[in-house]
Amino acid sequence: MVDALLLDLSGVLYEGDTAVPGAVEAVATARAHGLPLRFVTNTSRLPRDAILAQLRGFGFHLEDSELFTAVDAARQWLTRHRLRPFCLVHENIRGDFADLDQRHPDAVLIADAAEGFTYASMNRAFQLCVAGAPLLAVGYNRYFKLNGQLMLDSGAFVRAVEFAAGVQAVVLGKPGADFFQQVLASTGVAPARALMVGDDVFGDVEGALAAGLAACLVRTGKYRRGDEANVRGDFAVVDDVAAAVRLALAGPRAG
Amino acid sequence: MVDALLLDLSGVLYEGDTAVPGAVEAVATARAHGLPLRFVTNTSRLPRDAILAQLRGFGFHLEDSELFTAVDAARQWLTRHRLRPFCLVHENIRGDFADLDQRHPDAVLIADAAEGFTYASMNRAFQLCVAGAPLLAVGYNRYFKLNGQLMLDSGAFVRAVEFAAGVQAVVLGKPGADFFQQVLASTGVAPARALMVGDDVFGDVEGALAAGLAACLVRTGKYRRGDEANVRGDFAVVDDVAAAVRLALAGPRAG
Repeated sequence: MVDALLLDLSGVLYEGDTAVPGAVEAVATARAHGLPLRFVTNTSRLPRDAILAQLRGFGFHLEDSELFTAVDAARQWLTRHRLRPFCLVHENIRGDFADLDQRHPDAVLIADAAEGFTYASMNRAFQLCVAGAPLLAVGYNRYFKLNGQLMLDSGAFVRAVEFAAGVQAVVLGKPGADFFQQVLASTGVAPARALMVGDDVFGDVEGALAAGLAACLVRTGKYRRGDEANVRGDFAVVDDVAAAVRLALAGPRAG
Repeated sequence: MVDALLLDLSGVLYEGDTAVPGAVEAVATARAHGLPLRFVTNTSRLPRDAILAQLRGFGFHLEDSELFTAVDAARQWLTRHRLRPFCLVHENIRGDFADLDQRHPDAVLIADAAEGFTYASMNRAFQLCVAGAPLLAVGYNRYFKLNGQLMLDSGAFVRAVEFAAGVQAVVLGKPGADFFQQVLASTGVAPARALMVGDDVFGDVEGALAAGLAACLVRTGKYRRGDEANVRGDFAVVDDVAAAVRLALAGPRAG
């Protein structure tokens, strides 16, 4: 039933500095069975090259073209709309936007700026949005897990600006339907025959379902008991990505 | 029809360093007519004494007991519930909470911390709330006006923590019904016979209506054209506090 597999990264393939047990083998098995794979992430603390290097360092094999990041989607969107963004982003990914004119901003981009979230930067984002600048976000992520602790993620700061300025963000990564469609278009597989595997019940599961994909929640990463009760619709819940791959390979496939 | 007048401060009685034209005289007129007055504010960048001094400096006459602040309400609430707050507040009002034990916090209070809103402090607030600490807020204020510019206010940061932690704040100032009731209790006037005058269509007008008071929106301060369309219910819209006082004195009164 599954003709393409979309895999979230942090919390699904690895946690902190360690690959999730069985994840490297599970991804290799899926690939050996000819299942098209896509690696999809809202992570915005690392540039693309560093994400690829990190995954390969864990032992995962993947092509550059199989990695889809929300940061890439944001840069493409800004370029296409010829906007000059105020980039409230992490210093690690500032270089990704170096080609864009950022003087006299007419758009606001919020990613995981970490220590870059200050009153001054949030106020700037707010004032630009009140003046009519569109608000763009890599995601609505509430929190991520680091060294065993939940940490506040950029979605909270997006909500803050949305509330104060009375605007709604355009989400360029998960759970944005455009992002899922862009990833799927590269596979040629219809949404209903693609499975999204993630540890974030909102960004990964709810977003995928809204975009017409099948979804599978794993009990690793940021997963917390009871998360599955927060989202309506039909989706699978399994222990880890190895179980998700077994599920994906269990049914008949096209081709 | 009006037996008590509740007046918001910033944007109603003064803007920046200047009293609103006619405001000092209007307040004096209301007092001369025997109308009980209460001065009510969510301002949390100044301690109580400084607020009183500022108002008197503009020429307003008021008793200490006529001023009700959200910060006072928050301190009383925390004391009554014997909580140890993590105070995400402005350094100017830190002293207001000096009597409370703040070690090993089991509550979070968000006021207008200004530059105190950092990733680290917001993350701390988030983590405490995830662990079960109640989230307290002086208000849901979206923005305030300073030197002609709209500035991001603490309500945005409250929303951020609410969203990320999946909790709902207890609002101890406007628009909290408890706050309006506490102010009214000091007058002995029934809610329906009290008029709240403010420039914030959410905190002042919507909040007052929800608490059963009459409400009047003024077109000074942070008021922006179209604000009145954001709130349902019956309320007055007038140019300034002088017009609001004329309205309050127009009908028959008890006593």
